[in-house]
Amino acid sequence: MSFSQRTGMFISETHTDAMEWCFTVEKMLVEGKTKFQEYQICEIPRFGKTLFLDYCIQTSALDEHIFHECMSCPAMTTHPNPKSVFVAGGGEGATLREALAHNTVEKAVMVDIDDELVAMVREHMPEWPRGSFDDPRTTLLHMDARKYLEETDEKFDVILSDLPDPLEGGPAVYLFTKEYFELCMDRLSDDGVFAMQAGCANMNYPDCFAACLSTVKEVFPIVRPYWAIITTFLVPWAFILCSKKHDPLDLTEEEIARRFSSRGVKNRYYTPRFHQSTFTIPDYLYQAVEEKGQIMTDARPFIWTA
Amino acid sequence: MSFSQRTGMFISETHTDAMEWCFTVEKMLVEGKTKFQEYQICEIPRFGKTLFLDYCIQTSALDEHIFHECMSCPAMTTHPNPKSVFVAGGGEGATLREALAHNTVEKAVMVDIDDELVAMVREHMPEWPRGSFDDPRTTLLHMDARKYLEETDEKFDVILSDLPDPLEGGPAVYLFTKEYFELCMDRLSDDGVFAMQAGCANMNYPDCFAACLSTVKEVFPIVRPYWAIITTFLVPWAFILCSKKHDPLDLTEEEIARRFSSRGVKNRYYTPRFHQSTFTIPDYLYQAVEEKGQIMTDARPFIWTA
Amino acid sequence: MSFSQRTGMFISETHTDAMEWCFTVEKMLVEGKTKFQEYQICEIPRFGKTLFLDYCIQTSALDEHIFHECMSCPAMTTHPNPKSVFVAGGGEGATLREALAHNTVEKAVMVDIDDELVAMVREHMPEWPRGSFDDPRTTLLHMDARKYLEETDEKFDVILSDLPDPLEGGPAVYLFTKEYFELCMDRLSDDGVFAMQAGCANMNYPDCFAACLSTVKEVFPIVRPYWAIITTFLVPWAFILCSKKHDPLDLTEEEIARRFSSRGVKNRYYTPRFHQSTFTIPDYLYQAVEEKGQIMTDARPFIWTA
Amino acid sequence: MSFSQRTGMFISETHTDAMEWCFTVEKMLVEGKTKFQEYQICEIPRFGKTLFLDYCIQTSALDEHIFHECMSCPAMTTHPNPKSVFVAGGGEGATLREALAHNTVEKAVMVDIDDELVAMVREHMPEWPRGSFDDPRTTLLHMDARKYLEETDEKFDVILSDLPDPLEGGPAVYLFTKEYFELCMDRLSDDGVFAMQAGCANMNYPDCFAACLSTVKEVFPIVRPYWAIITTFLVPWAFILCSKKHDPLDLTEEEIARRFSSRGVKNRYYTPRFHQSTFTIPDYLYQAVEEKGQIMTDARPFIWTA
Repeated sequence: MSFSQRTGMFISETHTDAMEWCFTVEKMLVEGKTKFQEYQICEIPRFGKTLFLDYCIQTSALDEHIFHECMSCPAMTTHPNPKSVFVAGGGEGATLREALAHNTVEKAVMVDIDDELVAMVREHMPEWPRGSFDDPRTTLLHMDARKYLEETDEKFDVILSDLPDPLEGGPAVYLFTKEYFELCMDRLSDDGVFAMQAGCANMNYPDCFAACLSTVKEVFPIVRPYWAIITTFLVPWAFILCSKKHDPLDLTEEEIARRFSSRGVKNRYYTPRFHQSTFTIPDYLYQAVEEKGQIMTDARPFIWTA
Repeated sequence: MSFSQRTGMFISETHTDAMEWCFTVEKMLVEGKTKFQEYQICEIPRFGKTLFLDYCIQTSALDEHIFHECMSCPAMTTHPNPKSVFVAGGGEGATLREALAHNTVEKAVMVDIDDELVAMVREHMPEWPRGSFDDPRTTLLHMDARKYLEETDEKFDVILSDLPDPLEGGPAVYLFTKEYFELCMDRLSDDGVFAMQAGCANMNYPDCFAACLSTVKEVFPIVRPYWAIITTFLVPWAFILCSKKHDPLDLTEEEIARRFSSRGVKNRYYTPRFHQSTFTIPDYLYQAVEEKGQIMTDARPFIWTA
Repeated sequence: MSFSQRTGMFISETHTDAMEWCFTVEKMLVEGKTKFQEYQICEIPRFGKTLFLDYCIQTSALDEHIFHECMSCPAMTTHPNPKSVFVAGGGEGATLREALAHNTVEKAVMVDIDDELVAMVREHMPEWPRGSFDDPRTTLLHMDARKYLEETDEKFDVILSDLPDPLEGGPAVYLFTKEYFELCMDRLSDDGVFAMQAGCANMNYPDCFAACLSTVKEVFPIVRPYWAIITTFLVPWAFILCSKKHDPLDLTEEEIARRFSSRGVKNRYYTPRFHQSTFTIPDYLYQAVEEKGQIMTDARPFIWTA
Repeated sequence: MSFSQRTGMFISETHTDAMEWCFTVEKMLVEGKTKFQEYQICEIPRFGKTLFLDYCIQTSALDEHIFHECMSCPAMTTHPNPKSVFVAGGGEGATLREALAHNTVEKAVMVDIDDELVAMVREHMPEWPRGSFDDPRTTLLHMDARKYLEETDEKFDVILSDLPDPLEGGPAVYLFTKEYFELCMDRLSDDGVFAMQAGCANMNYPDCFAACLSTVKEVFPIVRPYWAIITTFLVPWAFILCSKKHDPLDLTEEEIARRFSSRGVKNRYYTPRFHQSTFTIPDYLYQAVEEKGQIMTDARPFIWTA
């Protein structure tokens, strides 16, 4: 067996004390720093154009569609006629893009605190928003998404919480608490649907997911975890759909296909055929919820330590 | 954002030109070399006891049950009454263990070419075979599995092909060809079921899977790909079940639960609830089959290059 | 003892099969590719601004003065009155800078094949040439330095061979051969002095130095190896001074101080006090010459394989 | 330029925030843990058998002679007739070996706190002590070396302080203070000589050396820094010789050769020819002493933070 050492440029990400992932940087495209985070956009072999935030891999051309279809489409599809959408975070503009893909939508409000990141995406990653920032239905604001929801009395059919992980000192810690989820519940219309990214879904670090699921169960009447396999992340990723009235498990493959077709939605990963499987998560995640599922509150938030 | 460099001992594995995975070696337990491969058994944080072969992560205490349940149980369960089982490869003894877990089994023949590796597993990884090498139903042989099948006229209800990836110059290259699959087909009883590990199932390197699926379709009447999420592998893993008469998709959750119960099978990952989802693979894998699905033959085998 | 994995961006260089050096990239300043090489200019902690060529660390703000004083000043000082200087390679402009620091110089010809690299240095690394490209005494040309010497009939008091290592397929392979050294000998004035960088000077890979020393001994009457400790390189570096008449070992500390003073030279590393020590290399290098000192010729050049 | 990622097993050492060094582990020979430190003995390409302590490279077969000749021989040679030697630390037994090589020695006391490490060296690294632990002139004790010197009233002709770097919480912090050096001064015979390893001698981290030199100058009448190029360490290494009466700078090459010859000493690196050069350190180290040379005391010791 031949050994080899390395030559080249790399970005390394530590995932728990067990491992580091080291990505080959073929070409550094843009590098910079906003008030909230450092970013790099690079060419990575096979992944293509890839965004790193604070040296964590965030999204790549290879499979950004998987994350963003899953972030947006299950909630959008579960709602029978989503007209108004709120996106919390989602700086790459692709969650917004996937929401706007449902032609029922008349109004989309996206609130991302990091205006510099969004400006950078507009310039250097146009393949992500694909014009959605400039869609006439879009209102784009830069402030704390929770503050926006606290101050508005608008109601939304769908709220999509596409936020960074709750890292120590990061801007998202208090958008993963019971108080935040109660606020989202309150801002949903009577048949509204909420979805969130909920951390990684492997056996190594299901801690964030476990806390998320435990907490949203305290708030929403219908709670459905789901997951997606995202090559770029090296771990499967968890999401949670929370709902006032509509249950995604009631949707047949045919009904989903019908809604996609009538709304002009064309997916590559979250397809009608794949709906049921997407909402079937393995037993180890339920076990993690039992063992580690703390309730996250403003007084005792969850801090990501992987 | 704080940078950090490394201190410590690590095993690194390259996965395509895009990335390297680097595992923290807390403690080196055993290291050695057989005629066929180098091995290390280490303690890795969160993974626990972990086996590396030729510096590729192979199996860990954290989730070896996921791989081995999926390697063995779908085929075993699909067969209504499996009495005889053949395991090609499977040196850790855990595929054999999972097959023997079905109390219908009267005879299991395991043929792994690497006797030194099996001896090492016996001594240093007894948590994997858990006594199955010494089960009275077991016949354990050390030779080329294909050669054994060529020379025997036995028939088996289930054949499980738990082989290393077809690396250049490695012992498994000709156990991934049409000729090998035809041999397996021939050695199955009339209602026999075959299953194989079929490479990684991410978007980065679906090449091996694509070739496997294309090839077995030339040989077996019923072909059903499935997959599993294995934290230790950092990529989802593909398997293929091939069958003469019985189709796993005909099995209801209830029927699977009934068979588990009557045969004394208790699984943690491949549960009756998870069966359907396990047999639902994403569209990108089917697309890879169309684009890259070469037929593997003895004259033109597939060589793993990731 | 605490383990740690890495987070951040890095450039890695392999030095023989024994080790890899991995540098922390605090900030990528410029990245690009010329016809001959790839380059990165980065901020590295403690090193400051640092140039990598083909992912090998080349020079850093921390101690570029050590390399360039040693590349230029021993030969310049050994010559009693250097008026004309030829620099082969030396794209960073700092070898030229150190030659021009001797105010006896009336004419300096620098020939570096890589015009794009020199243009990049001018723009992004002005701390290296410090105006020397625009010195009225300088003639800067972009072509193969050996070809230039073959075609000219000029004579030079000092020739400085500041070339990249003779990598397979690289532009410097035939500027490390006996034929090239004979050409340099021929282009020196009657009391001319030649100096070259001659590879690394550690025990791991003295191969290039050994071949250089063996070869120049075939050509020049006076041959004096010397070395420098360059923090940025992680290995000590070898140089060789070759001369027609003047011997650096004849220079006393006082005479060197006098020459520095009358010529306006102010050094930080290669000082009069340090001259003797600089020209005293350890026995292991002489032993390497005996064991590995092949004569490099155009027909059988030395190829760097570390 | 070709990129490559890694495959294999490695030990990584961080040296300041600027870089990590990553060594290829061809074969792990022994691994363990004493009360004071973790150790690995590995085969590294080109280095051969190599010892790591707490994941820092310590000594290798390639050039352990350089460190140990330099640790021992300058002080031994400077003393005109060394009969008694004290070695503080020096667990590999090679400093002791080099001291005993001077056949004037009648008594050598070695005190290393880590008996388990010494036992391990005896068994697995016999090429280092080469029998010196069992030399009839040797007394080997396991306790704190400072405590031993405090409690004894013996005098020694030579004291060699071959201690680990003063790491936070490590056993050597108080063997790098003024009080310790005063104790050594007191335990030297009237014409005694003391030598110590004094940290790395590159431009990146001369901090430990600067503090050592500043401190011993407060204690000893004659203080002479010197250095060695040790391939295994990737940085040049500093030593300091301190003396009551005899000055190494007074020794001519001829006198050193005479002493070597009469005492039976045969060196490979620290040879009579190399003596002068060994005692000539570069200006940047003197500059570091001026800028960073804190006096180390029991109340305010120096803690290594590189």
